[in-house]
Amino acid sequence: MRNGARAAAPLRAEVQNDAPGHPVRPLNIEANHMTFPDPALDKIFRPSSVAVVGASDDASRISARPLRYLIERGYQGRIYPINPRREVVQGMKAYPSLSALPEAPDVAILAIPASLVADTLREGAAVGLKGAIIMSSGFAEAGDEGAAMQEEIQAVAREGGIRLIGPNCVGLFATEIGFYGTFTQSIDRDVPPPGGVAVVSQSGAYGGYIAYLASQRGLGINYWITTGNEADLEVGECIAWLAGRDDVKVIALYLEGVRKGPAFREGLARARAAGKPVIAMKVGRSAAGTRAAQSHTASLAGSDDVYDAVFREYGVYRTRTTDQQLDLAEACLNGVMPKGNRVGIITLSGGVGVQMCDAAEVYGLDVAPMPEEAGRKLKKLLPFAAVGNPIDTTAQVMNDMSLLSENIRIVLDEGGYDMIVFFLTTTPAAEAYTIPVRDAILNGLEGKRDKLVVLCMGATKEIRQSYKDMGFLVYQDADRAVQIAGALTDFGRVFAGEVPVAPFLPSPTLAKGGDPMSEYAAKRVLGAAGVPFLTEVLAQDAAAAVAAAEAAGGPVAMKVASADIQHKTEIGGVALNVAGADAVRDAFDRLSRNVRDKAPGARLDGILVAPMAPKGIEVIVGTVSDAVFGPVVMFGLGGVLVELMPDVTFQTAPFDLSTAREMIRRIRSWPLLDGYRGAAPADTEALARLLRDVSIFAAANAEGVESIDLNPVLVLEKGRGVVALDAVIEPRG
Amino acid sequence: MRNGARAAAPLRAEVQNDAPGHPVRPLNIEANHMTFPDPALDKIFRPSSVAVVGASDDASRISARPLRYLIERGYQGRIYPINPRREVVQGMKAYPSLSALPEAPDVAILAIPASLVADTLREGAAVGLKGAIIMSSGFAEAGDEGAAMQEEIQAVAREGGIRLIGPNCVGLFATEIGFYGTFTQSIDRDVPPPGGVAVVSQSGAYGGYIAYLASQRGLGINYWITTGNEADLEVGECIAWLAGRDDVKVIALYLEGVRKGPAFREGLARARAAGKPVIAMKVGRSAAGTRAAQSHTASLAGSDDVYDAVFREYGVYRTRTTDQQLDLAEACLNGVMPKGNRVGIITLSGGVGVQMCDAAEVYGLDVAPMPEEAGRKLKKLLPFAAVGNPIDTTAQVMNDMSLLSENIRIVLDEGGYDMIVFFLTTTPAAEAYTIPVRDAILNGLEGKRDKLVVLCMGATKEIRQSYKDMGFLVYQDADRAVQIAGALTDFGRVFAGEVPVAPFLPSPTLAKGGDPMSEYAAKRVLGAAGVPFLTEVLAQDAAAAVAAAEAAGGPVAMKVASADIQHKTEIGGVALNVAGADAVRDAFDRLSRNVRDKAPGARLDGILVAPMAPKGIEVIVGTVSDAVFGPVVMFGLGGVLVELMPDVTFQTAPFDLSTAREMIRRIRSWPLLDGYRGAAPADTEALARLLRDVSIFAAANAEGVESIDLNPVLVLEKGRGVVALDAVIEPRG
Repeated sequence: MRNGARAAAPLRAEVQNDAPGHPVRPLNIEANHMTFPDPALDKIFRPSSVAVVGASDDASRISARPLRYLIERGYQGRIYPINPRREVVQGMKAYPSLSALPEAPDVAILAIPASLVADTLREGAAVGLKGAIIMSSGFAEAGDEGAAMQEEIQAVAREGGIRLIGPNCVGLFATEIGFYGTFTQSIDRDVPPPGGVAVVSQSGAYGGYIAYLASQRGLGINYWITTGNEADLEVGECIAWLAGRDDVKVIALYLEGVRKGPAFREGLARARAAGKPVIAMKVGRSAAGTRAAQSHTASLAGSDDVYDAVFREYGVYRTRTTDQQLDLAEACLNGVMPKGNRVGIITLSGGVGVQMCDAAEVYGLDVAPMPEEAGRKLKKLLPFAAVGNPIDTTAQVMNDMSLLSENIRIVLDEGGYDMIVFFLTTTPAAEAYTIPVRDAILNGLEGKRDKLVVLCMGATKEIRQSYKDMGFLVYQDADRAVQIAGALTDFGRVFAGEVPVAPFLPSPTLAKGGDPMSEYAAKRVLGAAGVPFLTEVLAQDAAAAVAAAEAAGGPVAMKVASADIQHKTEIGGVALNVAGADAVRDAFDRLSRNVRDKAPGARLDGILVAPMAPKGIEVIVGTVSDAVFGPVVMFGLGGVLVELMPDVTFQTAPFDLSTAREMIRRIRSWPLLDGYRGAAPADTEALARLLRDVSIFAAANAEGVESIDLNPVLVLEKGRGVVALDAVIEPRG
Repeated sequence: MRNGARAAAPLRAEVQNDAPGHPVRPLNIEANHMTFPDPALDKIFRPSSVAVVGASDDASRISARPLRYLIERGYQGRIYPINPRREVVQGMKAYPSLSALPEAPDVAILAIPASLVADTLREGAAVGLKGAIIMSSGFAEAGDEGAAMQEEIQAVAREGGIRLIGPNCVGLFATEIGFYGTFTQSIDRDVPPPGGVAVVSQSGAYGGYIAYLASQRGLGINYWITTGNEADLEVGECIAWLAGRDDVKVIALYLEGVRKGPAFREGLARARAAGKPVIAMKVGRSAAGTRAAQSHTASLAGSDDVYDAVFREYGVYRTRTTDQQLDLAEACLNGVMPKGNRVGIITLSGGVGVQMCDAAEVYGLDVAPMPEEAGRKLKKLLPFAAVGNPIDTTAQVMNDMSLLSENIRIVLDEGGYDMIVFFLTTTPAAEAYTIPVRDAILNGLEGKRDKLVVLCMGATKEIRQSYKDMGFLVYQDADRAVQIAGALTDFGRVFAGEVPVAPFLPSPTLAKGGDPMSEYAAKRVLGAAGVPFLTEVLAQDAAAAVAAAEAAGGPVAMKVASADIQHKTEIGGVALNVAGADAVRDAFDRLSRNVRDKAPGARLDGILVAPMAPKGIEVIVGTVSDAVFGPVVMFGLGGVLVELMPDVTFQTAPFDLSTAREMIRRIRSWPLLDGYRGAAPADTEALARLLRDVSIFAAANAEGVESIDLNPVLVLEKGRGVVALDAVIEPRG
């Protein structure tokens, strides 16, 4: 990666690599190659030659299909069937082995028993094979024995310089060159035409299903990749490769669980930098779904909330159904992506406008009222129209199509809207109107094709297609029409927005496999990293405790300090609101005695003396080490109620101050921090600094820290800062 | 209503009509007829003869269409075109007026200028006309003048005994008798076939759109009704009529805002009693949508939350898109409605199971694990299968179809599931499998067709239809397949469930147009209705205050009592935590003096003395008088945080104790009341009694009370009751 000239949008964590005085923190991409994505992927996804190992003549066998598809679909490269028991397979000359070939093929398809894969790869490495698509199953998905075999083929491939797709995958196809290196039967039914969509699916069978649904609607797919067990290549590197292709305009993902978080993020960063929308369907949101996912795949699931955070970070649009995903992919091929969210809703008849306003709210669009002057102009044009927003033209425009054009002109030019969603009822389905309505809309849009126009109409497939052919997005369902407009706007904003710069990371302070830490130790470490705590004095004797209490200048809290005691309250190790020298002395003696009596083996470091907590709003700040994405910061409102109605948000670490500010504003109870009902605003700037500092600490110490808990953190009045009352660090490893 | 023998499921509020000692509270259905629904609707929705007033020869005119549709579609009754300027219209003998007809037609379609409608109705009344479908616009939707005209035609119709549909409606059709009394152009494009669906739409244009989308998918519609301005007939009475028809199996509604709440509820109650699913799309959820709805229709919107409450009460399924609505309507025609929610998910290939589990959670289905014994049997049958739930048969079943049948048998018989959702990938699309797979499923289901089976497959329309023809529900989208299963289960539970019995209502205590009430007066009235308050004494002098404080037995709160003072705290009219005789005496004097000094005009009733509030969980209980549905009880958690993250639920009043218990369990913070994290459970039974009593009071005093606020109500420990600390009653009228 360090010499990777192709890195279009580096991962945040890399930024410090060039910063003097900071240690280099390499990308956590397991690499047996020096660039990302590996240039060898060109040969795997667009091979000039392919060997089909295990090619069969028996049409009923899975192993017969890839060869048949390659032949039937007119693969433009050279095909080498390999079958030691036959001279001819499916009418082609067959070779006994990879080493018998006249050249080293770009890629080999392995449709052979799992037990034969390792040796075949060894043979491939010897002849200079660069890639293998392993369809064989019986690896990690099949238990311990299979997992061992998978490790073996990983090692063989790494040593031999072969990149792997699979095993246990359904293969891939590249439409334009006719490379159908797959056994998915879905392409026996129907094949997607060429087109700007790329599909990456972690599920082979469902990937085939997506391909079928896409072909049903004529949606063009240039690349379709199933990744199977991801013993080597995983979804992130595939995305990175696709992001660099001119013949890919939009990337659709079907995810069960990403294995390599950093590579996945890097892939998404590349796609964003290249202005390529990524639309993800990630399954396993629910408890039942997560359970099913774990039993189905060998992958680490990671937390679904963290996926949402990562998707938000890179502007990935998450859909819940394949139908939505394909609609949106199609729209991304043709649609404009607005940078603003003001939508003008036009209808030929009033009723549906309400429905579309409801949808606009759901999908983040602003049905801003028509400016007065524009409204007057519209009213002059169409006296019976409703000229607010939605704009109900009434059927009057049907008598004079120029009114329709002029209406659109006024809405866009004078209304200042970023886009139009136009509900046309079934009017375009009437023969007399099909072409005039279309032309009137085109006239109204002359010189404005940079604006997004989404049409909703009831009409035959052919009529709708005739509108699509003019570059319109066309839907029958009003809700879907608005959803697409909202999604394209989300992409428009992401691509127009600035990519936040990652903060530099300091050297780690906690190594992997450290001992459990006491609260006191955790506070010292985090205090050094910028987290404000109450001034705590570790008093070794009563006199020191009294002095500390006097310095605090008010009632104090006293707690026993011992790494051996987890639950201080239970052994009588805490005293609150202690005021006056005598009381402090008594408390010191009582607490010390309680440790001796009730936790006899515990090592007592002393008694902590701290001021009582000031008044503030309780929040919680924490980090977790996500199995896939590493350190993630969690922030939310505190208190018992939010356990029942959680109000938390996640952000992968590290991040900068502006991201921290956004994070604070994301929770629903944000107004509580902003001065709710006349209360003084809380110090949200200090809170943002705390979040940033925690994120940097967690990222720098990713190896040594499993989780951090600051609960509660009090956010004081504006200008008075924040203070964490408790700290727990769980070491890692 | 009182002599309505057809009343299958009476409105709750009617129950007390037969109860001795309780006043009769008639249904608030504005009735110029004595039965509900009016038997005259038979003549309007299924007429034997129709007059088309204003029938035109000019095909370009809206007024030409109903006659043309009636002729073209082969209406089975007698048609009388009426046009004083022509002898023949569209090839039929025309009459100059209604009075010139040889018979009184069952219904007249009025496609004439608004100004002519009233006189035409007068003429119709004279000849004995029973119903009119008024397509003319320019009434209440067009401003004050139109509203006055609408009132006139309402009066004419009432006096003349004519029921009206419209004005400003697009008409209606009854498919089987070929009655197309409509000008919707959508049926020029395509007409829905006959079938068990009835559509009632408050939007004419969108109603036409729904009809078009239904015809596109071949969904059968026997009745299609647009209600326009609803000057007389509104959606509720239409539902009631449809609920009584054997040729209606499911009712689909498109609602902008119901005008007559009681009639609407009565209609829904009839549909539920008749076991007919009602699927509603109600627009105007969002702020923008509500604004658009108000500018578009003349209807009162009512609160969208209250619609949700009413839908829940009658088991109406609310969809957000027309696509969902039509899918579900079709499913209701063919599908079984399970009484339990245990779903067995079967897939031919693993990946999609996770997605379907996610969907099951969203749609309320339980992906319960396979019982062990059943799992063993399955594993014996299919050694490579995943036999939990989802059940992944693997492609093995493709080699021996009997395995597929046996699999289904085991899942239903031994798994105890209420339904199966089966994902078949694109396998049925392969010619070799289309029929074998279908037959294998049918075999497996022999004797079990009472179980719901939903199939999901990628295949051509024709192949999917061949499965539908065998009675299966078939979808391409996995999420939709599960959604339909969930919705059918919701209906199954509603129809199997008991209809709660309404409590008896006492006589009202507050008349319409009462004076503003003081807190003290509100507490007395509500206290008499069963709401527990702290014992409050209204002390006229200091000695009485001291005596009251001594009786309370602890520190007391003291407040000035005056209907003239709204904000007691601001004038120094409240003293808290007052302990001891001297302090009470001082406080009495100080509070009285503050009233004299700071609110000199106010009439002081005395000083209220009450014990300080005990510890409990703060909730809020209130009622509002919904513009459409009348008194509605609101219940939710109290405190400042829930203003930002509301946790409230609504229920129309009155209701019984079991409904009150359900209501309490509906809020998300219910666990807080149930003894959260080791806390003692709160007295939720006392809370349920309070909610029921408030609902009865609000219903009995619907005329006199606009709203009630009990905020906060403290829910004490179990067995210790509840206590309301404050009470506000806003009088009505």
